[in-house]
Amino acid sequence: MQRINASIGFDRKLAAEDIAGSKAHATMLAAVGILTREDADAILGGLDRVADEIAQGTFVFKTELEDIHMNVEARLAELIGEPAGRLHTARSRNDQVATDFKLWVRGAFVRLDGDLKALQVALLDQAEAHADAVMPGFTHLQLAQPVTFGHHLLAYVEMFGRDRDRVLAGLARSDECPLGAAALAGSPFPIDRQATAKALGFARPTANSMDSVSDRDFALDYLASCAIAAVHVSRLAEELVLWTSDQFRFVKLPDAWTTGSSIMPQKRNPDAAELARGKTGRVLGALQALLVTLKGLPLTYSKDMQEDKEPVFETEETMALVLAAMTGMIRDLTPDRDALRTAAGKGYATATDLADWLVRELNLPFRKAHHVTGTLVKLAESKGVPLDQLTLGELKSVESGINQGVYSVLSIDASVGSRASYGGTSPERVRQAVIAARSRFL
Amino acid sequence: MQRINASIGFDRKLAAEDIAGSKAHATMLAAVGILTREDADAILGGLDRVADEIAQGTFVFKTELEDIHMNVEARLAELIGEPAGRLHTARSRNDQVATDFKLWVRGAFVRLDGDLKALQVALLDQAEAHADAVMPGFTHLQLAQPVTFGHHLLAYVEMFGRDRDRVLAGLARSDECPLGAAALAGSPFPIDRQATAKALGFARPTANSMDSVSDRDFALDYLASCAIAAVHVSRLAEELVLWTSDQFRFVKLPDAWTTGSSIMPQKRNPDAAELARGKTGRVLGALQALLVTLKGLPLTYSKDMQEDKEPVFETEETMALVLAAMTGMIRDLTPDRDALRTAAGKGYATATDLADWLVRELNLPFRKAHHVTGTLVKLAESKGVPLDQLTLGELKSVESGINQGVYSVLSIDASVGSRASYGGTSPERVRQAVIAARSRFL
Amino acid sequence: MQRINASIGFDRKLAAEDIAGSKAHATMLAAVGILTREDADAILGGLDRVADEIAQGTFVFKTELEDIHMNVEARLAELIGEPAGRLHTARSRNDQVATDFKLWVRGAFVRLDGDLKALQVALLDQAEAHADAVMPGFTHLQLAQPVTFGHHLLAYVEMFGRDRDRVLAGLARSDECPLGAAALAGSPFPIDRQATAKALGFARPTANSMDSVSDRDFALDYLASCAIAAVHVSRLAEELVLWTSDQFRFVKLPDAWTTGSSIMPQKRNPDAAELARGKTGRVLGALQALLVTLKGLPLTYSKDMQEDKEPVFETEETMALVLAAMTGMIRDLTPDRDALRTAAGKGYATATDLADWLVRELNLPFRKAHHVTGTLVKLAESKGVPLDQLTLGELKSVESGINQGVYSVLSIDASVGSRASYGGTSPERVRQAVIAARSRFL
Amino acid sequence: MQRINASIGFDRKLAAEDIAGSKAHATMLAAVGILTREDADAILGGLDRVADEIAQGTFVFKTELEDIHMNVEARLAELIGEPAGRLHTARSRNDQVATDFKLWVRGAFVRLDGDLKALQVALLDQAEAHADAVMPGFTHLQLAQPVTFGHHLLAYVEMFGRDRDRVLAGLARSDECPLGAAALAGSPFPIDRQATAKALGFARPTANSMDSVSDRDFALDYLASCAIAAVHVSRLAEELVLWTSDQFRFVKLPDAWTTGSSIMPQKRNPDAAELARGKTGRVLGALQALLVTLKGLPLTYSKDMQEDKEPVFETEETMALVLAAMTGMIRDLTPDRDALRTAAGKGYATATDLADWLVRELNLPFRKAHHVTGTLVKLAESKGVPLDQLTLGELKSVESGINQGVYSVLSIDASVGSRASYGGTSPERVRQAVIAARSRFL
Repeated sequence: MQRINASIGFDRKLAAEDIAGSKAHATMLAAVGILTREDADAILGGLDRVADEIAQGTFVFKTELEDIHMNVEARLAELIGEPAGRLHTARSRNDQVATDFKLWVRGAFVRLDGDLKALQVALLDQAEAHADAVMPGFTHLQLAQPVTFGHHLLAYVEMFGRDRDRVLAGLARSDECPLGAAALAGSPFPIDRQATAKALGFARPTANSMDSVSDRDFALDYLASCAIAAVHVSRLAEELVLWTSDQFRFVKLPDAWTTGSSIMPQKRNPDAAELARGKTGRVLGALQALLVTLKGLPLTYSKDMQEDKEPVFETEETMALVLAAMTGMIRDLTPDRDALRTAAGKGYATATDLADWLVRELNLPFRKAHHVTGTLVKLAESKGVPLDQLTLGELKSVESGINQGVYSVLSIDASVGSRASYGGTSPERVRQAVIAARSRFL
Repeated sequence: MQRINASIGFDRKLAAEDIAGSKAHATMLAAVGILTREDADAILGGLDRVADEIAQGTFVFKTELEDIHMNVEARLAELIGEPAGRLHTARSRNDQVATDFKLWVRGAFVRLDGDLKALQVALLDQAEAHADAVMPGFTHLQLAQPVTFGHHLLAYVEMFGRDRDRVLAGLARSDECPLGAAALAGSPFPIDRQATAKALGFARPTANSMDSVSDRDFALDYLASCAIAAVHVSRLAEELVLWTSDQFRFVKLPDAWTTGSSIMPQKRNPDAAELARGKTGRVLGALQALLVTLKGLPLTYSKDMQEDKEPVFETEETMALVLAAMTGMIRDLTPDRDALRTAAGKGYATATDLADWLVRELNLPFRKAHHVTGTLVKLAESKGVPLDQLTLGELKSVESGINQGVYSVLSIDASVGSRASYGGTSPERVRQAVIAARSRFL
Repeated sequence: MQRINASIGFDRKLAAEDIAGSKAHATMLAAVGILTREDADAILGGLDRVADEIAQGTFVFKTELEDIHMNVEARLAELIGEPAGRLHTARSRNDQVATDFKLWVRGAFVRLDGDLKALQVALLDQAEAHADAVMPGFTHLQLAQPVTFGHHLLAYVEMFGRDRDRVLAGLARSDECPLGAAALAGSPFPIDRQATAKALGFARPTANSMDSVSDRDFALDYLASCAIAAVHVSRLAEELVLWTSDQFRFVKLPDAWTTGSSIMPQKRNPDAAELARGKTGRVLGALQALLVTLKGLPLTYSKDMQEDKEPVFETEETMALVLAAMTGMIRDLTPDRDALRTAAGKGYATATDLADWLVRELNLPFRKAHHVTGTLVKLAESKGVPLDQLTLGELKSVESGINQGVYSVLSIDASVGSRASYGGTSPERVRQAVIAARSRFL
Repeated sequence: MQRINASIGFDRKLAAEDIAGSKAHATMLAAVGILTREDADAILGGLDRVADEIAQGTFVFKTELEDIHMNVEARLAELIGEPAGRLHTARSRNDQVATDFKLWVRGAFVRLDGDLKALQVALLDQAEAHADAVMPGFTHLQLAQPVTFGHHLLAYVEMFGRDRDRVLAGLARSDECPLGAAALAGSPFPIDRQATAKALGFARPTANSMDSVSDRDFALDYLASCAIAAVHVSRLAEELVLWTSDQFRFVKLPDAWTTGSSIMPQKRNPDAAELARGKTGRVLGALQALLVTLKGLPLTYSKDMQEDKEPVFETEETMALVLAAMTGMIRDLTPDRDALRTAAGKGYATATDLADWLVRELNLPFRKAHHVTGTLVKLAESKGVPLDQLTLGELKSVESGINQGVYSVLSIDASVGSRASYGGTSPERVRQAVIAARSRFL
């Protein structure tokens, strides 16, 4: 029973929040006259000593005291005696743990926002440096149109920007303090919940005591934010794995971010990228875990809810590790601009530019231009040449209106340069987008 | 191949959004001079006719045309001829489908907000009507302290309020229009993306064309919001199942919301509540499905992403059904106030009140008061009486300071009335909370 | 990089399997002449010393050596020098880790089978002791028909029996040894894979070297088995929570399996049952995690697959803990036979028996009998009496053929006793079923 | 209420099973004397007519009759009158639906086995045809060692073989018939459950009536089997996407399995492979959905369980579609043997062969051989040549014992040919493995 019941093995992570919550509670109790000034001072001093002991590693956590709350309170009683027994007035373990955990998750939101921002910075620096490096743009992993390396990286700046917005919305949604809800029904003492909420950095107290002790939305919001961000990370990680493969060789990762093989010494395995991709599984699993745990629980607190912490703690560690690794890899990678340019020129990546030219210059309906282009691509394929090596005669044989001007759009640089609509891949647009993103996100 | 590839079976749901998107696009093309006024008028008129045909059910959807976009465009060509071929200028199916689907999901956010609000209204009306109906408050499904029925329902008003906040945050986060991103790289035409964004009700165009066609965050936000709301629904549904069981009999559902049995005619099964609880599985599964589908996809569009729609469409139907059923059940249920009161009086639900009295009146430290209360509860248990039937002598035998005043806190009404801290269960607080909630949420 | 890459923090759990695998490999290398007898003896002796050091806790695990395999090999080199460098001949870390982990999971299957069996034993003992204790049988948590407590528990014996069958099928499906697949392509050395497979308790070697190092089906099988078993546990746990609630009071758990409250000393919270129910979330999350991690990985080994171990290790601990707790609770609970009987007699639990009597004795079509019964239940409800307190006149007023004989089926004991079809709830059937289950499962 | 409650929209899929179950039940009722021969004949004849009507599409499904069971029974009553009302004797909708659904899932297991076998056949045919086509073998998507195309495909034959074993184990585990469990408690009629079980193709009746109506393990087994198989499919699909990309060009898919682009006519998008990969999400979601739905449900039947069917039905359609597409693509693809060979020769794919040669011929300890090889690869890299173009002098400069013989292992054909250990990639082994696999699986 003790083994399945005790949570001190993991909830010791909440020590700082538990002490902060107790200090805010004791201060408020004194302010409204429930505690004497002397008792409050003894409690506050004792809690500071407990905090020091924990910080210095001299605190002895005891499994028989079950959780962090009882460990702290028991030590406080050893240190200051009777007043320790007055600290729990007008609160319960239910509102205490909800407050502690919510405080911790709010901190995790802030850290996650910072880690995502650091990754954006790395992406923006590389995007700026390679705003004009042409590379193949893929759909279906098939060469579609040339884009620039900077433009490609900026797509991820947008993703992580939405992630940060989601994170900050989760933080804002968790701005109500449960402390004072007591076990479930509120307190008969004249407590000042606005004061404790404010002292702990919340905007206001929670509005319903039963919801206060039953709610773990803040943890779900955190895990959902992480799950979506992890999917974004997995997409970037997949690209790093592809880009460093022998078949692509688009970028080079320094040895620090790759490993060798026990049997194949020539290998440079992108382990960190693979792990960043693979860890998506655990993050998605953590979100599912808490959703499943909470499904179908009647009000108010049920012990099932003790299962809320480990998925969150593990996910926080995972995200910190994964985002740090991605930031390092992005910062340290070197794109092979020649290889990217060569790859962009293969296939018939400027076919769309040809179609657009036919519309723009010859006023063909798009669908007709599309058809003409398809015929020309087949012709070029049959001759084994790129589009811009078809002769004007060959081009005219399919669509008589075509003139010399068409060659100006068939190079990959022309293609990239022309796509200057808002959000487009032209180097000028990319440079503007970098500036705008720095202003929006940093 | 056609069977696995075609999406017209489900994406016909996007018909209205597809036509709206095309109209905005055509209008903009004309405004910037890419289309002639005549062609634009022909297109706009033709699209209105297509919309009418779909509305009237005379439109023939063809699987060989694969998706809604080609179905609409092909019919437009039949109706207006050549100008139809000019509509696809400066756009691609990739930005078109992203725009259509995003528009649809934005509508789904709005509908979900409305459905959640309707449920809040039903909860608030019942909470107001039963602000003072005492009932057992549970932790661990064990009788803990008396609360009121109104207070209990208000806990769900808070949950669904957070859900609505999440929904509106998702709506706000999806306010950028992908149209004009073209296939992935942007367009060489001088299009006005601000104009199409505005015409379609977005705040602005998306900032990166590659992200525009790869992003399905809006669908993930929608599904994550639904998943968390579904968990809340499952908790309320669980309570309805418990409350209508023979062992509880706390509330009565009208026959409209229950079913009989093929073999046990006396049964009144709370089927709708059970289905609302059970459907949580499918909603959680839908979130998982889309997260898994997107995991590890390189940029930009991959066909995998066609799997984005069915989980969203099915979840929207599920949530609409479940929330309508919950709203109906809450509105139509009748709490058995006598049964609730009787149940609240069982056990030793006012033990906490006794402990609080010892702290407040005798200045005992909470931990000591807790210990005294425990001893008194054991004494009462051994005598088979409730706490308020212990004699003063018996009470004094454990804690000599106890006086006659203690009896004033041992009744369930006194208990409920005393918990008047902000967010607490006292009837007065509950009535205030109803007023405040109407102001916050309606 | 080291932090995200190192696995020694968790894969040290594989130490015993790693050493067993190396011993089998070295023995085989010597047998086929790849190693000299002396080198093999040195290796075998050295590995035994390493095993001793680990068992005695004197082994120093080093993070910079990354994983358990390198930690063991490095220590072996310290102990025996040059021959240690010959151990890795004709194998790779890829087949080594696959073998180690598969061996570990095979052990986990066996332990899980044993834990499930222990729970069956506890259920069977209680079922036998209470084969004739009538209780309410529920559908939709509504009283449906009386059953016996023993019969109810036997339903779980069946569930856990299927779980064991699934576990043993998973064990059987993982009976091929990957060792000798080397990195991915097999080995040019004349190794004897049958010998190593046999030495390690496998039935045979794997048939394809690339599959050997890419396959984690055995872990998925383990997690899927655990997920389904956890759902079964959650159902039993839900029942324990209900049965120990104030509204049911069907069973009593000893204090060892419940906890008190920090503020409500009269509470006896079924924490262990709630945790067993709540931990379902983490088990389902673990299954999803590994499925997601493996989704879309090309052959052969990718580093993502290092994420296979923690979900499995954590799930094994969770299942061991949960099953031990459930076994203890089932063994130690005491059903309140009086309360069960009283609850079974409420409502109109023998309505079905009445309908069946009408069919059997009066030869009414079932649908007609159903209708007659419904009318009689409504009549009894309106008079506020149980069915067997309707007078014969009242019964005849609805169906004139009813005679005195009907009263013989309207008691709960008669009802239970009559349901003697194979698999039915009659006490005699239950006792037979206990005997049969002991024979099938123990 | 009707909308959330009715299941006829999807459970009409169970029509054939429902009629088969009713026929077996009626036949048994007559055999044991509960039904007259005449009534039974009327029922059997009527059920055949209903089956015909459904087969011919003339049957009118009515939502107000809620489910398939009532639809069939109501129509039977119209056709044959009073005897129809006797069919439901000694059964309940609970055991009826469990039986129907279990029969359906058993059929789905059989179909899934057949679809997996067809995919194995396609893989085996290609493996045989290309048993000696060398290609790069990857770990971490980095070139590791040469393998053969046939060997690579055989890895999937193993995976799908395990899937089939899992499917057949699920089929075997679902061989007990619930019919006769009645609502939950068994029946007072002298029914012969062995007879109905046998008539419906089950091995025996279920052993516990409460479990019979609460159990959905067979559906979980089916979904878990599909989830694992879908992950295997996603890996193969990922490889097809990679192999058909411009960067790889390892295989060519005929146009029938690819699509063009609306704007880029040169594209050949591997849509079917992408969809097969993307649909993994929905299959994993379906498994999660049913696990979540069942979590925490007390015995016996709860309406939540009506949510069991749609995830299973949808998954069956998805798997059939995906496996047919994969089978078609594998059958119809053409590997580009030249491209594969060229790619296999890049990098230093035979480094491991060099290391193995040093061990075998010079008796170096493996770890030392590994180190020598690494130095030589670095030397070759610095000179920009493959390993077999290092001069003997250069080789000896690192390890003086190296002699001319080493060149015999440095070619990719030598490498592949030498890996002849059981399960290895040598063409001879691959051909043997094809024969063995045909014998094991077909």
